Amino acid sequence: MSILVVGSVAYDTVETPFGKADHVLGGSASFFSVAASFFVPVNLVGVVGEDFGEEQLKAFRGREIDLEGLERVPGKTFHWAGKYSFDLNARETICTELNVFETFKPKIPARYRRSEHVFLGNIDPVLQRQVLDQVERPKLVACDTMNFWISGQPDELRKTLSRVDVLLINDAEARQLSGEWNMVKAARAIRAMGPRVLVVKKGEHGVLMFTEDASFAAPAYPLEEVFDPTGAGDTFAGGFLGCLASQAGGGTRDRADGAALRRAVIMGSTLASFCVEAFSLDRLTRLTRAEIDARFQLFKELTHFESL
Amino acid sequence: MSILVVGSVAYDTVETPFGKADHVLGGSASFFSVAASFFVPVNLVGVVGEDFGEEQLKAFRGREIDLEGLERVPGKTFHWAGKYSFDLNARETICTELNVFETFKPKIPARYRRSEHVFLGNIDPVLQRQVLDQVERPKLVACDTMNFWISGQPDELRKTLSRVDVLLINDAEARQLSGEWNMVKAARAIRAMGPRVLVVKKGEHGVLMFTEDASFAAPAYPLEEVFDPTGAGDTFAGGFLGCLASQAGGGTRDRADGAALRRAVIMGSTLASFCVEAFSLDRLTRLTRAEIDARFQLFKELTHFESL
Repeated sequence: MSILVVGSVAYDTVETPFGKADHVLGGSASFFSVAASFFVPVNLVGVVGEDFGEEQLKAFRGREIDLEGLERVPGKTFHWAGKYSFDLNARETICTELNVFETFKPKIPARYRRSEHVFLGNIDPVLQRQVLDQVERPKLVACDTMNFWISGQPDELRKTLSRVDVLLINDAEARQLSGEWNMVKAARAIRAMGPRVLVVKKGEHGVLMFTEDASFAAPAYPLEEVFDPTGAGDTFAGGFLGCLASQAGGGTRDRADGAALRRAVIMGSTLASFCVEAFSLDRLTRLTRAEIDARFQLFKELTHFESL
Repeated sequence: MSILVVGSVAYDTVETPFGKADHVLGGSASFFSVAASFFVPVNLVGVVGEDFGEEQLKAFRGREIDLEGLERVPGKTFHWAGKYSFDLNARETICTELNVFETFKPKIPARYRRSEHVFLGNIDPVLQRQVLDQVERPKLVACDTMNFWISGQPDELRKTLSRVDVLLINDAEARQLSGEWNMVKAARAIRAMGPRVLVVKKGEHGVLMFTEDASFAAPAYPLEEVFDPTGAGDTFAGGFLGCLASQAGGGTRDRADGAALRRAVIMGSTLASFCVEAFSLDRLTRLTRAEIDARFQLFKELTHFESL
């Protein structure tokens, strides 16, 4: 039982109304791996430059995160810099220096090829398919994407989506991908492209999940201090897929999985609620399983009501 | 057991991407009364002009809605005209003709003065207090307001809020009233102004309720066709307060009321989800209690998850 994740490992420079963090650990695979590693072993595939050393790897050490697939190549590590608006609801990209990530070709180590669960982080849909070509029939494939690929590589993205079980995107992306404003219609259109499960992330407004036979709505945890939203989506994905993989069944093939999927959404929301409490992976790396379970339970109290 | 509602009874002219309705029944007290009347008798206080007759009153007839408090005076009925954006998330007011509503002074009939529950629709906070001065110690006072009063009559609004148990406003209004962007902080600031319960309506993103000892989050029902959002907030309030009044206890004075308040939020969301399916009160007036109960149950399926 393990998860293969392919995505970016990066340096982030982030400015929020509450402070600035310069060249701190970021990237979709980083947030995903640490979040998922609370539940099952993670196999990480990504690339970093010569400027990425043992100090930066600390976040992954002492966890069930296998780093054989994290290539280190000549050049500099991917660097993203962004600045958030006063309300944290909008962000401006200051710079995107792809560096070694520009020529990234995912190579899946032999040991990883039987990973039962695969998460395709937000990279070129052509590369996402190359990952799938290198693995043996996983039980479940989950995938992220973004506006850049939706508008720039629509045909390649469609080919990838036809091989995906769970798509995790935000509400703006769901509307763009489907061409439908209404989320119920958007979900139907996207599920017809391949994914049996669509998870729509709405930031402070929570998550909607659409499956064959039901919809599920989960709120975001109402936090008094949101410090930095960077990585919340990938952290959600890590908590979601980690939780799903750790549960008996853990796939989406049969109806019984509805309950597992719902718990996974709440677990993703739980992990994401911690992620935003500090810069980078600072909160996630000092998180305990007891804290996770306590907040999961708070979601129960937050949403519970009795029938009439 | 009855609810006193004071608010507008109006003609609405509404344009949405799906059609236009000219001079149809609208107004906060109209939507509220029909929604609440599914649960308890409603005493309606408002004013209409000579252009408002039996045809328009049809929506209220055959229901537990007492119209003794609906004054008919010389002049024309309040008329509002608005146009919604393609996504229904923004609306532009085309005209606001207050007409007879401009000089409205709520007169509470003697029979209404012992109403146990009071809903103060979105009117001048000075008038809202005049209503409270005319009633005998209600068990629970709920109140709506808007940006116009928050910025234009802040001191009067504060005086009214100090006498209110439940405030129902939208997220933008909560932020404006409190001066806090973060909703947890906004809720604390607003509850310190008087209301023990704050209900924040977020449209398609659902509702957050803040009480002394807990927060509660409810999604909006994911509808495939949202036709006209006009009146959804007042319909929510009607379902909320109607459900609350119909439950044993039904107040907010003791801790046991937490469960009743949560059910009331879901019932408000249920009624609002029907309201937006058609223009004016068209859907509400042909709604059955069986349909209401079935959709309430769908909210359970929409939000339910099991513990780990």
